[in-house]
This record gives sequence, C-alpha cells and structure tokens, in this order.
Amino acid sequence: MSKKATIIVFSSDLDKVLAAFNIALGAASAQMQVTMFFTFWGLNVIRKKKSGVSKKDFTRKAFGIINKGGENRLKLSRFNMGGVGAGLIKRLMDRLKMPRLKEMISMTNDMGVKFIACTTTMELMGIDKEAMLPEVKGFAGVATYIDEASQSEINLFI
Amino acid sequence: MSKKATIIVFSSDLDKVLAAFNIALGAASAQMQVTMFFTFWGLNVIRKKKSGVSKKDFTRKAFGIINKGGENRLKLSRFNMGGVGAGLIKRLMDRLKMPRLKEMISMTNDMGVKFIACTTTMELMGIDKEAMLPEVKGFAGVATYIDEASQSEINLFI
Amino acid sequence: MSKKATIIVFSSDLDKVLAAFNIALGAASAQMQVTMFFTFWGLNVIRKKKSGVSKKDFTRKAFGIINKGGENRLKLSRFNMGGVGAGLIKRLMDRLKMPRLKEMISMTNDMGVKFIACTTTMELMGIDKEAMLPEVKGFAGVATYIDEASQSEINLFI
Repeated sequence: MSKKATIIVFSSDLDKVLAAFNIALGAASAQMQVTMFFTFWGLNVIRKKKSGVSKKDFTRKAFGIINKGGENRLKLSRFNMGGVGAGLIKRLMDRLKMPRLKEMISMTNDMGVKFIACTTTMELMGIDKEAMLPEVKGFAGVATYIDEASQSEINLFI
Repeated sequence: MSKKATIIVFSSDLDKVLAAFNIALGAASAQMQVTMFFTFWGLNVIRKKKSGVSKKDFTRKAFGIINKGGENRLKLSRFNMGGVGAGLIKRLMDRLKMPRLKEMISMTNDMGVKFIACTTTMELMGIDKEAMLPEVKGFAGVATYIDEASQSEINLFI
Repeated sequence: MSKKATIIVFSSDLDKVLAAFNIALGAASAQMQVTMFFTFWGLNVIRKKKSGVSKKDFTRKAFGIINKGGENRLKLSRFNMGGVGAGLIKRLMDRLKMPRLKEMISMTNDMGVKFIACTTTMELMGIDKEAMLPEVKGFAGVATYIDEASQSEINLFI
C-alpha cells in the first residue's frame, strides 16, 4: 500500500502556498497518496477570481469585501511591500522557468492529489461550492481530515 | 492501543488557535489520545486574563506589559485591523452557533485532551504555574514533547 | 533502528527558529536521527553574515538587498518593534544562561543533526553554496525531503 501525505493549507501567503504545492508535487512524484486540506485563509487559494460570498448577511458581506479569492492575489509573508516583493518572486520564477502557482494547482491536480475544501470555514465565511475551482472535488470537515491524517506518514500544517 | 495526536500551539493568532482546538476536538472525537503543547505566544491562550509576570526584573516586567494573557485578547493573523477582523469572526461564530474559544478550551479539556505548558518559555517570560487556567495540568519541557510526538500518528506545529 | 525527525525551517522569525532548534536538540538528545531542511526565509538562518547574492541580474540583486542572511538579523514574529522585542528575548535568554541561536546552531550540528539547504530556493534567490555556514553539508530539493520525511516519526513545518 502506498504511503500517504496530508497537508493542511491554512495560510494564503504566496510563499507558504508555493511550499505546500512543491511538497505535494514531490510527494505525488514519489508515489505517495496526497491530500491537501484547504481551510481558513487557504480557501482563497482554490477560489475562483471573481467569486464573492453567497450569504448576504452584513457580517459575511463585510468580511467578503476584504477577504477575496484568487491565486493571483496572494501576498508574501515577508517583504510583500504592497505587492512589490510578491512581484519580484513571480519574476524570478518566470525567469527560471518555474511554474506559476496557477500551473502548479493544475499539475498537482493532474498528478492525482486530492483537494478538499473545509466546509466549516466555507460556512463561516459564506462561501459556496460554486465559488471553488473545478479542481476541488472534496468538501469535508475535521472528521475527514483526522481520518486521512491518522493514516499518513507525513502530516504538515502550513 | 489508541492512536495519538500531538499539537504544538506556538502561535496566539485567534484563527490559528481556533484551528488547533478544532483539530484537537476532531482527533479526540475519533478516540485518539491528544496532547496540546503550548509554547511561546501560545502560552497566552491558556493564561488567566489578569495574570501578570511573577518575576519582577526589568526585562521580564517590560515584556509582560506588552505580552498579555487571556483567550479574549487574541488577534487574527490577517485582517485584524485593530480588532475589527477578530470581532467579525467572533460574530460569525456566534451566529452559526459555533462555540467561542473559551468554550472550546473547556470542551477539549472535558474530552480528555491533555494541556501541557512549556516550562522553558514560562521561565523565559517569568510566568508562574498559578497564572495558568485550571485546565492546564501538565508542565514540561522539550523532552516530554519529543516522547509524546515520537509515538504520535499526527504531529503538527501551529 | 532509531526513530527519525524531519523539520522544515521555512520561517526566519527568531522565535520560531529558536523553537525549531530546541525541538531538534530535544529529538537528538532522545537518540533520534534529525534532519533540518532549510527553505525560503529559513535559508537566512544558515547563511553567513556578509554573504550577498551571487547572481547579478537585477531582480535577484534587488531581492538580495532586502533579504539578508545571518542569524543575528532575525526578527520576532510578534512584538518585534524595530528589534526591541528581539533584543528583550535575547537579554532574557542571556540572563537565564540559555544558549544564543549561534551556539544552538553549533550544538545542534555537534549532536549530529543534518542541515540541508533547499537548492530550489537557493537558485531562486541567487544564493551560492559558499554563502552557507560550514555546518551546512547537504544541498537538496524536495525529493530528498520527501524521502526523509516519509520515514520520520515526527514531521514539522515551522
């Protein structure tokens, strides 16, 4: 039976998210069964660009205005400087012919990595299934996470 | 023998701490033996609200003034905006009838999750055992952590 | 066969890096085989103080100016306040006769912990092997990390 890796993507910092996908790709390349569990800010990584919140109560609407989805919006955890730092990193990645995050998401999906969106956070933030990228096929809560993680050789919280 | 999960709570960001307790609750519900090891800023989560530092040398006193305990003080890692973001999240949790952090601490404790406070950080910051919530029964250093973690199926650093 | 621990050091926050080395020391003391895998900002921890970037294209040069190496430059993840917070922590550690980070790096190395620098990030940031501390003997990418981690009882992302 193949080994397993389960990665919680909690952060939406571009640098951390790139690390998460690199590790997922590495594990999938080594024939591991990989699950990425997106929760909290990490949900923004797998949301469509124009997706808003579906629940129109004031609080979630207000939160939806500041907390937008789309992989091209992500910031660096350090030296972001209003996007300059994130731009530098993207330029460096282009020059070295490294794939951009958008391509990494699709490569990772092609290699059979399972993307799961945390339903508790989706409820909290008023985000619908329709707002998610088509690559996201699983929707689940903490019980599913624990089930996967307790069988995994590699567990990370990113 | 039941499976084990060991979670280091290093952060005191409200969002990350909520994730830590959610995972702990999920693991305990799945009959795992769960240990939460609170260190560095994470110690603030399990400190009583009015607790100060006990050691009165200048450096620790100065640090104690800026670094206060109490679960109601925690900030968001993003969009905190002077407490507005944290307030929004709390309002959303209330509306969805999700338990507040304070209740989660007591639920987690009731389910048999073991809370351990890191003695090295307590010494560093001049915090006494008396400053801790009554739920905290274990006080230990890294050797105890390693012993637990090396037997755990799930290890996370949050 | 001895148990293994593999720690990704992604962050260069002084507090998190201290935690990483404490855990590494604790695991090595418990006879575990420990690997620390330094990537992204974490590379700064094991870079020589005066090391610059070797690649002189504009983007990496610009990034090298803001992103400097050396363990004495690290900041706190909270309350850094232009270095005041980091200074307070260092003073407290001195008073309690705790080893400074520089000594922890050499102690950890003496105990046989393996330091690996992530070659993908080195390439991205234009950092040469010569820029690394002499303690760093391994240079590798994600495949090596996955190989180690999938055999490890303790896996952490810090």
